[in-house]
Amino acid sequence: MLERLKEEVLEANLGLPKHNLVTFTWGNVSGYDPETGYVVIKPSGVEYEKLALNDLVVLDLDGNIIEGDLRPSSDTNTHLILYKEFPEIGGIVHTHSTWATSWSQAKKDLPAFGTTHADTFYSKVPCTRNLTAEEVERDYELETGNVIVETFKEKNINPLEVPATLVHSHGPFAWAKTPMKALENAVVLEETCRMAFNTLMLDKNTGEIEQYLLDKHYLRKHGEQAYYGQ
Amino acid sequence: MLERLKEEVLEANLGLPKHNLVTFTWGNVSGYDPETGYVVIKPSGVEYEKLALNDLVVLDLDGNIIEGDLRPSSDTNTHLILYKEFPEIGGIVHTHSTWATSWSQAKKDLPAFGTTHADTFYSKVPCTRNLTAEEVERDYELETGNVIVETFKEKNINPLEVPATLVHSHGPFAWAKTPMKALENAVVLEETCRMAFNTLMLDKNTGEIEQYLLDKHYLRKHGEQAYYGQ
Amino acid sequence: MLERLKEEVLEANLGLPKHNLVTFTWGNVSGYDPETGYVVIKPSGVEYEKLALNDLVVLDLDGNIIEGDLRPSSDTNTHLILYKEFPEIGGIVHTHSTWATSWSQAKKDLPAFGTTHADTFYSKVPCTRNLTAEEVERDYELETGNVIVETFKEKNINPLEVPATLVHSHGPFAWAKTPMKALENAVVLEETCRMAFNTLMLDKNTGEIEQYLLDKHYLRKHGEQAYYGQ
Amino acid sequence: MLERLKEEVLEANLGLPKHNLVTFTWGNVSGYDPETGYVVIKPSGVEYEKLALNDLVVLDLDGNIIEGDLRPSSDTNTHLILYKEFPEIGGIVHTHSTWATSWSQAKKDLPAFGTTHADTFYSKVPCTRNLTAEEVERDYELETGNVIVETFKEKNINPLEVPATLVHSHGPFAWAKTPMKALENAVVLEETCRMAFNTLMLDKNTGEIEQYLLDKHYLRKHGEQAYYGQ
Repeated sequence: MLERLKEEVLEANLGLPKHNLVTFTWGNVSGYDPETGYVVIKPSGVEYEKLALNDLVVLDLDGNIIEGDLRPSSDTNTHLILYKEFPEIGGIVHTHSTWATSWSQAKKDLPAFGTTHADTFYSKVPCTRNLTAEEVERDYELETGNVIVETFKEKNINPLEVPATLVHSHGPFAWAKTPMKALENAVVLEETCRMAFNTLMLDKNTGEIEQYLLDKHYLRKHGEQAYYGQ
Repeated sequence: MLERLKEEVLEANLGLPKHNLVTFTWGNVSGYDPETGYVVIKPSGVEYEKLALNDLVVLDLDGNIIEGDLRPSSDTNTHLILYKEFPEIGGIVHTHSTWATSWSQAKKDLPAFGTTHADTFYSKVPCTRNLTAEEVERDYELETGNVIVETFKEKNINPLEVPATLVHSHGPFAWAKTPMKALENAVVLEETCRMAFNTLMLDKNTGEIEQYLLDKHYLRKHGEQAYYGQ
Repeated sequence: MLERLKEEVLEANLGLPKHNLVTFTWGNVSGYDPETGYVVIKPSGVEYEKLALNDLVVLDLDGNIIEGDLRPSSDTNTHLILYKEFPEIGGIVHTHSTWATSWSQAKKDLPAFGTTHADTFYSKVPCTRNLTAEEVERDYELETGNVIVETFKEKNINPLEVPATLVHSHGPFAWAKTPMKALENAVVLEETCRMAFNTLMLDKNTGEIEQYLLDKHYLRKHGEQAYYGQ
Repeated sequence: MLERLKEEVLEANLGLPKHNLVTFTWGNVSGYDPETGYVVIKPSGVEYEKLALNDLVVLDLDGNIIEGDLRPSSDTNTHLILYKEFPEIGGIVHTHSTWATSWSQAKKDLPAFGTTHADTFYSKVPCTRNLTAEEVERDYELETGNVIVETFKEKNINPLEVPATLVHSHGPFAWAKTPMKALENAVVLEETCRMAFNTLMLDKNTGEIEQYLLDKHYLRKHGEQAYYGQ
């Protein structure tokens, strides 16, 4: 079942080491099928080079396993909440990639310093607040999803316009309409985190990009007036 | 038409990933043929590994498409202005390479800290001023070209002596008499940006190279008295 | 003798260049067999690409060579002390990997800044005190082992819960129940040292991860309540 | 003539890109034959991948070309002075490698922060003073050699005990008894420059390694009491 989605989820998982986003098994990609309401996700702790289509786990949005012999990613509940609350997304990537994790550990929003950022993210990429002890003890992975949703709602950010977040003391999640596009967004996030780090080192008071230039670049690539690409 | 120029433009575009100057399709190279007055440029958003000679687009300096089925790079108008205003150049490279983009985002001229810089750039590499909202809205890519030209004219810099610039909040453009030499200059810019970053971190008050040493190295490789190479 | 252990020690030594933990021959892995009480260790100064099973040296815990024609690693006495004093470990890795060595040279404990750290290390990774002139002159490598043991005893750290240390002005040692797991811990240490560096650069006053989140992540992967992996 | 030396000089030149010490042709290795008093050196501006035995240039210590059709490295006069003044050395490497060049541009001695440094360099690696305008105009490459020699004489440093230097506003030279060992020292210099940079970023007031530990590590690998390796 869901063969095409499984193939894309497998390809996107294999894209994690290819794009240098992971050490060992520190990352996972899932995809969502709106027709069945099912999620396809990487199994927990399996090496990418050994990962096969049949290893992927299919779940419904309540976490019931529909298909698969392996245990799903330990971060599964975070993915499920995001699919429930951001119904327009169809793929999620979580990693501990070096630069995005460094920003998450510094507990800082990623500023929009240039057009590279603006081409993908239509504002800062927000860092979530810290989870409370109660949240961590109650249901850690689910509450990680909840705090991401809370962040986007409170700051009134459209998750398709800023398709990533930095989880406090943890690392990045990125998403998109498809798993492969979510992988691309995770790569862009990592590179913009690296450039923004360098930018701050050169001038810790650097200002963000002008709003009109941010608009120009984002809208050059997104929406009805886009004119980038073929 | 322009087969030899197309081959060089293709080779220089393929040099972008080879020299680690690009993520995804974030860069483009063009070449100029002074006899016909035509420009050959990469099409917009096409992956380097899939790029073929026939995909390249030929335009005149007013932007009229002479040959090619694909849309030219979204940055085409910047390239055209530079060929018009800097008639001695024959190749242009634009990328979002990590270190040069970081300096562009910090909105700083690249200081001439050593002989590596002096071997290619005969002074600081200037960062342009910010574009105004009016300029961005009027014709963003064309005005990006204009602000580069303005920078070199106001600072009285010869574009063949300093064959690159950092565009404010954006990233680098490099150029030369040929596309392959422009690629080389883009690589040198990236490496000198990286070294200059490190240099500043070690001592934020580091002084620039002495003028007589800058002269010596630049002129060892350029002009009538050059004695580097075969 | 000890063929299976030798194979694992060889594989773990070859993992050092594979994981970019070494320049030239700057690293060594050993393994311990509790039944015989023997240690298998890399010979001194032999290149990894030329290393063969027969080159490995077998010693008892007092340093008597049981098997092998080559001289054992110059750091052998440090390994032996650690096996004697930390009887629950079965593999040790020593390297001069870039980031962990940089922290060792800065003589700083590695703070626990995030969940990547917490997944492997159940607190800060301690840096040892400086050896005295007397210790260095008496028996340098043995005293290096002693100061590691002293550090863990004085700070009351369980060496399986924090399976690594930073040796003052020198570099990292990592360990585990097996040589391959010790290699993995050395890789994690290097990556967490790199991320922690970046984190401090972004905010030199960054606080460490909350204890309840550290507990959650460490215990998600370790102990009876673990639920990561298959 | 000098076939064996030429083979080693070729191999060491090819080691420059292999060890990531060079961009384009920014580096050169030479070797010295004490019997004939001749030097074998890379030709100027030739790409490493195209370099052949026959391209190497043989000169005497006064710079007279004994053999070879190509022009020798533009840095030849620096090499010649070093062979004249440091008669115990037999190989020299010059590069613009990223980290060593960054320290050269910051005009700082490389401090001895740890045992990695001490294994190869028996004190700080000195940075030369700036050349005067007169020196640069008189004979730039020769005066570069002279200022290196002056640095070692004034600071009373044995060039075999500290087999490298950082040339002010320029980049590193490394040397040894043989070209291949000089290449190794250039690699060690680059890695120690990188680690020392990180160390300073973590604590700009970090002290250098204790003299007794520096002695221990240097003498563990060098001299009559050495016990590292086979």
